[in-house]
Formats: sequence, structure tokens, C-alpha cells
Amino acid sequence: MRSMAEESGSLPQWEVLRRELHADCRVFSVFRHTCRHPVRGSEADFFVMRSSPWVNVIALTPERQMVLVRQYRFGTERFSLEIPGGMADGAENPVEAGVRELREETGYAGSRAREIGAVHPNPAIQSNVCHLILVEGVRLEAELSWDGHEELETVLMDVDDVLALARGGGITHALVLDALFFFLPYWEELKNRGE
Amino acid sequence: MRSMAEESGSLPQWEVLRRELHADCRVFSVFRHTCRHPVRGSEADFFVMRSSPWVNVIALTPERQMVLVRQYRFGTERFSLEIPGGMADGAENPVEAGVRELREETGYAGSRAREIGAVHPNPAIQSNVCHLILVEGVRLEAELSWDGHEELETVLMDVDDVLALARGGGITHALVLDALFFFLPYWEELKNRGE
Repeated sequence: MRSMAEESGSLPQWEVLRRELHADCRVFSVFRHTCRHPVRGSEADFFVMRSSPWVNVIALTPERQMVLVRQYRFGTERFSLEIPGGMADGAENPVEAGVRELREETGYAGSRAREIGAVHPNPAIQSNVCHLILVEGVRLEAELSWDGHEELETVLMDVDDVLALARGGGITHALVLDALFFFLPYWEELKNRGE
Repeated sequence: MRSMAEESGSLPQWEVLRRELHADCRVFSVFRHTCRHPVRGSEADFFVMRSSPWVNVIALTPERQMVLVRQYRFGTERFSLEIPGGMADGAENPVEAGVRELREETGYAGSRAREIGAVHPNPAIQSNVCHLILVEGVRLEAELSWDGHEELETVLMDVDDVLALARGGGITHALVLDALFFFLPYWEELKNRGE
């Protein structure tokens, strides 16, 4: 994920002097980074959320419906309609993690899976990456296997209806909308092929 | 931002019993919410990041270039190419906050501003909203006014080049890509009008 966009130009890159645990929050941790400005020499503390890599998954059935999940979210204290997703475990690669999360959360499984994008959820205060996975040809074939407090409702929806709902404010999870952003060109291509 | 997507169906809505400050991280705070399941009666703690509302801004010059900023980001410890943005102050509405952040970070100002979308950065662990603002007809006309540790480089880029860069992995900030997602239909309309 390095690119020309990350070149520094004339901008200073701060040196990280120390990274200390500030708060353990179970699914993430907050570290206090003490940093030094390379030119001015001044020091300042910055707080950084650390977490495992995240994945989320656009799963399409052979009938071109997208597999969505509705669940109660403790951050917003509301129900939220999303694509399946979660955290990568240990050495799991992003595609494996996506396929596993899809299966555990919804029972849907498919073999044609690939990464279509990767984003930084918030470069200012978070270090991790969210990988965006596309799985095609999925079918309901596995038992659900929810994590401790998960309770989900699976919803199948036509892709164009998902896109319209998202544009209209009915899907508000930033990382889900990112997956749709990267999925758009694939969807246009699929439709143009008339498949 | 409530919609049919947030209907609960058969899903349980947990009751929040207590919200206690767990960690003060200056630009955000982490609260520990103790919650009770409405059916099972079981209790569990969940960590929630709280912050002021965020805004980010797609600013277009009369020549249809987008105003981008490149800066060092303490979360990823890398340089990042983004659209301008920041936090709303107190009673400021999202459009006012966007216009102010654009002016302070880049010196560009414009009067035709509106909200084109709003997202939850992460409904699982964050309570706040990021508002996505479009400002048209901007010109370089103000003095820069950076916050404490801000140092930015302004970059003007043709919109189609920004979109190609984003799709190719050159822009990785999730909330910036969300702004582009909501901007796409406006851009298509602008181009189709041949303006």
C-alpha cells in the first residue's frame, strides 16, 4: 500500500521515540506515541489505536444478490445493515479471514475470493488496515458460528438495491461503503458482460 | 441517519447500564459501556470511542480540480494524500466546519457548500459521525491557519485523476474514499451537463 501519494515532498516525518500502552480495550488497544519533530526537535504525544487487521466481504450469490447482515452495534447504539466482516486471526491472510468471517456470520461459502482493495480506517489515529474482499458464487452451506456477543440477521439484496440504499443513507458504515466504492468497477464490468 | 436499514427485526437491542470514562486520549475518549442483554439478562462490557463530529471536504476549483492535502499521519506513521478535514467545533454545523477546515488547512474558500453524505466511521466501536461536504467554485484566498502540529502540502489534481489514484490504492483513508463514493453521482452529472 505504498505509492507516490505517500512521498513526503518537503514535509517532515516525525521520529517515534517511545510507544507505550495507554489503554487496553479488548478488541483494540490505545498506545501513546512520544514523537520528535525532525527539524524543530520539539516533542509531542499522540494517541494511536492498534488492532488486528480487519476484513469485510462483498459476497455475491449466483443470482447476483449481495449477502448483508443486520446487527446491533455498541458504538452507535443502533442497528446497522452491513456486509459481513471481522478481524483476521494471527497468521490468516486477508482472503482467508474474509471467507471465514462470511461463513461464520452467515453460513454462506464460496471459493472464488480475492482482495479488491485495502484502506486505512483512520490514518490519523489508527495503525491498522481493513482489507476488502469479494467472494463470488456463494451458497448457504455452513452452520453459523457466532462470536461471544454476536447476533446477526442475514439479508439478501439485489446489488443495485444495495447501491441505491447506500447512496440514500441506509448503509452508514464507512468501511462497508469503501468496499462498495472498490466493487463498483467490477459490478459495471459484470453487468456489461451481461453475465 | 435513521432508516429502514436500522429496524431491528427480531434482533435484541442491549440496554446500556453505565458509561464510564476508560481512557482520555485528547482528540478522542474511550468509554466502557456496561450493557445488559434484553432477553438473556446477561451483562457485558464494550469499549466505545467518543469524539466530536468529523467533517471532510471535497473542494472543486472553477477549473474542476480537487484540492488535496498531503501530510504525515501519526496513526500509520506514513504520509497520506487526503481531502481536507477535521473536527467540528462546539455548535458549528457540518457545512460550516467543512468550509472552515478547508480554509484553515489550504487557504481555499468557496461559498457553494453542502453536505453530500454522512457515515459512521465504525459503528462497532465509535459513536460519532463523519460528515462529507462538497464545496464548489473554491479559490485560494485565505491565509493558512494550521492547528498545533499540522504541516500540510496542498495538491491540486484533476477529478478523474483523483478517482483513478483512489481506485489504484494511492489514496487509502477510508473516510476520504467514502466522500468520493458519495461524490461520484454528482461528478457524472457535472460531466454529462458538459459544464
